[in-house]
Amino acid sequence: MKERDFIAFALSSLARKSANVAAAIGDDCAVIKYTPGKYLLVTTDALYEGVHFSKKYFTPAEIGMRAAAANISDICAMGGLPLYAVASIGFPAKEKQTFLRPLYRGFIKYLERYGARLVGGDTIRADRVFISVTLIGEVEKKRLLTRRGAKPGNRIFVTGILGDSKAGLTVLKSKTRAQITASEFLPVKRHLVPSPKLAEGRLLSASGMVSSCIDLSDGAASDIERVCEQSGTGAVIDASMLPLSYSAMMIAKKAGQDASDYALYGGEDYELMFTVPEAKISRFKEYAAARGMTAFEIGRIIKGRGVHVIKGGRKKKIERKKIWDHFK
Amino acid sequence: MKERDFIAFALSSLARKSANVAAAIGDDCAVIKYTPGKYLLVTTDALYEGVHFSKKYFTPAEIGMRAAAANISDICAMGGLPLYAVASIGFPAKEKQTFLRPLYRGFIKYLERYGARLVGGDTIRADRVFISVTLIGEVEKKRLLTRRGAKPGNRIFVTGILGDSKAGLTVLKSKTRAQITASEFLPVKRHLVPSPKLAEGRLLSASGMVSSCIDLSDGAASDIERVCEQSGTGAVIDASMLPLSYSAMMIAKKAGQDASDYALYGGEDYELMFTVPEAKISRFKEYAAARGMTAFEIGRIIKGRGVHVIKGGRKKKIERKKIWDHFK
Repeated sequence: MKERDFIAFALSSLARKSANVAAAIGDDCAVIKYTPGKYLLVTTDALYEGVHFSKKYFTPAEIGMRAAAANISDICAMGGLPLYAVASIGFPAKEKQTFLRPLYRGFIKYLERYGARLVGGDTIRADRVFISVTLIGEVEKKRLLTRRGAKPGNRIFVTGILGDSKAGLTVLKSKTRAQITASEFLPVKRHLVPSPKLAEGRLLSASGMVSSCIDLSDGAASDIERVCEQSGTGAVIDASMLPLSYSAMMIAKKAGQDASDYALYGGEDYELMFTVPEAKISRFKEYAAARGMTAFEIGRIIKGRGVHVIKGGRKKKIERKKIWDHFK
Repeated sequence: MKERDFIAFALSSLARKSANVAAAIGDDCAVIKYTPGKYLLVTTDALYEGVHFSKKYFTPAEIGMRAAAANISDICAMGGLPLYAVASIGFPAKEKQTFLRPLYRGFIKYLERYGARLVGGDTIRADRVFISVTLIGEVEKKRLLTRRGAKPGNRIFVTGILGDSKAGLTVLKSKTRAQITASEFLPVKRHLVPSPKLAEGRLLSASGMVSSCIDLSDGAASDIERVCEQSGTGAVIDASMLPLSYSAMMIAKKAGQDASDYALYGGEDYELMFTVPEAKISRFKEYAAARGMTAFEIGRIIKGRGVHVIKGGRKKKIERKKIWDHFK
């Protein structure tokens, strides 16, 4: 059974809204009405050994940091602030304290770096190491960003370089950490310990100019498709506009791959992707520049359905088989 | 590494309190200040195939219900109401929709029975089926029940029959479900689908007479020890006062075991255990009787440290090796 099938089923079995739930599954976080001025944001994400990380590539502390990052990024995508986390940590009996302590410390330290803290947890015996995190945050009602406000004509932006995470993984799969060169270091680091875009999410949510937002967990092509599904639109991404690092391009070249595919289908970059109405573009660019925020335009929202990619002068449909699947 | 060791380490690495956190690890839920009149309660609990359940004994729907129940019970123990759940569900690629759908439906149905709903989730590929749940609830500030208010002289009560869950597991380990007799049915059912004590938790929290409360997840002896640790007291449990079912006694006898050990060390009964100051006992008994709430007295809180069990006229220390360990 594929993840997408199961999620579709899960969605169908849930009521979309109830009196106190503003938005449930279908966005980065569940949005719950709580105080008159604020929403509660709730997200959950699990990392499982052999699926989301390999102990060959990751230090224990990095596994902990990564688990924190994936959840923090979901809160950032909705314009909120992360606050409280709980974690279930599973591990085999043979695991030593020398493995678990740094994992745990890395996790807590990373939460704290983003202003959140661990308030509870559960440890269980398991066949493999896993860490399942739930993170609670909050956002002022007026500042909530969702996936569902994109409109035809809106421009699509991202907050930073894409494809590095997949490039880093490509390096990690090909050599030991000691063999990693200086030019490969940054993409590798970005794969191991992503940096969720908290400041950017807050700036976007304060701007009043952003019509939709999502965090890039599965690649720009796959994630814009989610925005389109929720907004009832289509999208075109221009591959030549994708912000790629020189390192990622070199790594892709060496692997006989295309760095723009890393950006489109690579996953786990944890940048934010957002849309801005055309009429607000110049004002938005000034706003971003004045605050030192990077924003790369990569495409636009269109009428109709489906995601198209312009590459080498040709417009093609999204390549489904390339989409990042954490299940593979 | 044992669960207790790791939890002790986890505790030591957490600050006990911060401005907005009233109580973190050490109680059934994390308690977060939110609105002027209410606390947010957050709890997390995971079930892992082969550790917390066996697919031999459990139907998929029962696994889902059990996952909901364990978390709901934590909210009940603090006097609160369960509201919002998120779940990470892990499963191997070979699992069929015929297994996952009823698991999911059982989970959602059980949440709804207790007034809570699923607001988000994550599915991941894993070696075994697991379900990691985070449940958010709320409680009026004045009605919060914790583990830390027990005082010497307080009487210890439980809300219902103990030991049935372990008795049920004993039956399940010895035969197929088709072979289960009518007299074994109830303990088996209580093991498979526990019923958290929501109404009782609310009545206890409204009474204003309860000094501490915990849900029975690991057995009366082990769980009262937790109350004592948090309250800085000791406790004596009178084994002759433990409310046991006739079925559990018969099952224990057949297995050459002692049903009072099922109650003391058996785990997963999910009744509430609470303490009442001596001066309020008669008033409390009237309060409970008038509301149709069962409350069995099983012992009392004493000065000093440690949990003692009176059995066959002799007072003995808690038998640590018998304590239910989900890791075994």
